[in-house]
Amino acid sequence: MRLRSPTTLPMTTTLSYTQLFAFTEAVFSGMGCPDEDATLATETLLSADLRGVDSHGVARLIGYVRLWEAGRINAAPRVGVTYETPSTAVVDGDGGLGLVVGPRAMQVALDKARQVGSGWVSVKNSNHFGIAGYHAMKALAHDMIGVAMTNASPLVAPTYSLERLLGTNPIAVAVPAGEQPDFVLDMATTTAANGKLEIAQRKNLPIPEGWAQDAAGVGSTDANAVKNGGALLPLGGATGSHKGYGLGAVVDIFSAVLSGANYGPWVPPFVAFLQPSENPVGQGLGHFFGAMRVDAFRPADEFKAHMDNWIATFRAAQAVEGHHVLIPGDPERETSAVRLLEGIPLLEPVLKDLETVGSKFGVKL
Amino acid sequence: MRLRSPTTLPMTTTLSYTQLFAFTEAVFSGMGCPDEDATLATETLLSADLRGVDSHGVARLIGYVRLWEAGRINAAPRVGVTYETPSTAVVDGDGGLGLVVGPRAMQVALDKARQVGSGWVSVKNSNHFGIAGYHAMKALAHDMIGVAMTNASPLVAPTYSLERLLGTNPIAVAVPAGEQPDFVLDMATTTAANGKLEIAQRKNLPIPEGWAQDAAGVGSTDANAVKNGGALLPLGGATGSHKGYGLGAVVDIFSAVLSGANYGPWVPPFVAFLQPSENPVGQGLGHFFGAMRVDAFRPADEFKAHMDNWIATFRAAQAVEGHHVLIPGDPERETSAVRLLEGIPLLEPVLKDLETVGSKFGVKL
Repeated sequence: MRLRSPTTLPMTTTLSYTQLFAFTEAVFSGMGCPDEDATLATETLLSADLRGVDSHGVARLIGYVRLWEAGRINAAPRVGVTYETPSTAVVDGDGGLGLVVGPRAMQVALDKARQVGSGWVSVKNSNHFGIAGYHAMKALAHDMIGVAMTNASPLVAPTYSLERLLGTNPIAVAVPAGEQPDFVLDMATTTAANGKLEIAQRKNLPIPEGWAQDAAGVGSTDANAVKNGGALLPLGGATGSHKGYGLGAVVDIFSAVLSGANYGPWVPPFVAFLQPSENPVGQGLGHFFGAMRVDAFRPADEFKAHMDNWIATFRAAQAVEGHHVLIPGDPERETSAVRLLEGIPLLEPVLKDLETVGSKFGVKL
Repeated sequence: MRLRSPTTLPMTTTLSYTQLFAFTEAVFSGMGCPDEDATLATETLLSADLRGVDSHGVARLIGYVRLWEAGRINAAPRVGVTYETPSTAVVDGDGGLGLVVGPRAMQVALDKARQVGSGWVSVKNSNHFGIAGYHAMKALAHDMIGVAMTNASPLVAPTYSLERLLGTNPIAVAVPAGEQPDFVLDMATTTAANGKLEIAQRKNLPIPEGWAQDAAGVGSTDANAVKNGGALLPLGGATGSHKGYGLGAVVDIFSAVLSGANYGPWVPPFVAFLQPSENPVGQGLGHFFGAMRVDAFRPADEFKAHMDNWIATFRAAQAVEGHHVLIPGDPERETSAVRLLEGIPLLEPVLKDLETVGSKFGVKL
């Protein structure tokens, strides 16, 4: 099923989730991923497309393939715990896809939480893991709170810095509710993701103040600012970027200084045409996962009843004309329901990239 | 030693830390705090004044006293664990000063971390606990990472809300280093603290965009906006307040939905002239504390050497002309060193409040 949507600009093609799943899984298999890993990597990657985070889904498949071609991804990693206590662990991703390493490490956190109430896992020697929210949400089915973070290629300037020293370093927190849909926060610690700048570039539009600075460190509304030697600004932008910087720093420290991954400017770039540092301070990039059983604090039913009340109260708040108050996770959950049913729209350049990737492995869309 | 500083406007009086400590301790004793609690509460409260967070220090002593007079603070609480697993606990603050309950609960987190690698404690039935950073920093001496959060009286509107449903809900994370000074992030999840609006009010100045909205939910530069039915904006302000809202929500859930404290609009107000809700959803206000041994992830010396490298790298980054890149905690540490030596400057209205408080208990400044 491929439906052209003539009214949308730029041109998109819609593929069913099933079709896109089969294609992506075949590509990962072609790279040499064991079957179980190919399926897992596909589920992790496509969770971004389902949830409407198009910048982190199949649009990146070609990027993963190129990293693998450059010998920078191990398609069949032996992921394992290298250091632990009853409630903590370091997991070595063995250079694998973060899409596979992430869920395995989160499983370690869940197992530890089952045993001692909470589990906290820092990961080294990994690669990009898709969207943080997917990993945090793994806790929900177990009546646990899930936490996921990752560091990423340096694109962000700390407050007053001319240098890019941090990634967009996202934080996700998923909290189970009872009758209400779960609470799922998934946010970059920058004001805007780089993907939003790319959209503005394509449309030749200026960007809002507080998103980026130019090469001289001056706030800029030029969508090409980051490309031309500038940097993304931490969350808080013009009036409070020290807070976003602080949060991004915590993500970097928890993900990499705790585990022994690369941090700050040493985080390996996602794009294969940029080389990783010749003097790394650790192995690969890093993640951090957490899980807390809600019944490690109070009976789960009691917790979930109050969580329902929390959600219902916030959702019912009197709102600005024409708007209503959202609960973190609402837009993504709604998009997911629609896309599971109606398919996932892909921009023409993404479709072209997928065809390129498919041709490498003899897989057809 | 009381030195008038004629050049500073508005007029300030400088008291030595020792003098202010003795006075504050005597006031807490006068309220009926056991000796140990009076000393602990004083240390906690004055850590704000030392670190330059003047809005959260002795300036609030009169507020605590009024709450006590209104029967809303228990001066001699029996603080205890009511629910636990090896790595988690709920602490009941028995209506005590957060300044006393907080350190006791953090101690539970530290003890659990010593045993099983990490400890996570949610607290109910407490009151305001001073600055979050003080509590997180308790972990540093033990080569642990410390985390502290608290909910607070509702002053903040979630994105699109006309109602105030969250407090300024701060997050603090303290990370030990080796040769370098420790990393200490301590931030409200709003763009600006209410104290900054009060300063602008006194000076009759407008506030920057992104700090507040008016009663109609429109962004406002009027320093009286919050007073007149408006609200503080979550971190991210005009272009990303959904992220600050999400972070503030996580603080509220971890501090109160996990523990059984009041959350959202039910959080009891700090000021005694506003009554708490007649239909509370929990007990008192809530905090959340965490501690992770760094050697629960890798050898402590190794961690601290990399943390030193992280800090040195960020501090040395090329910076905007006339500035340099700060590490979270730098300004507060520097202020603390100066004020320990030179004393703590107090504004005239604060000094007057202290004299009022002192006269209640027959204590002289």
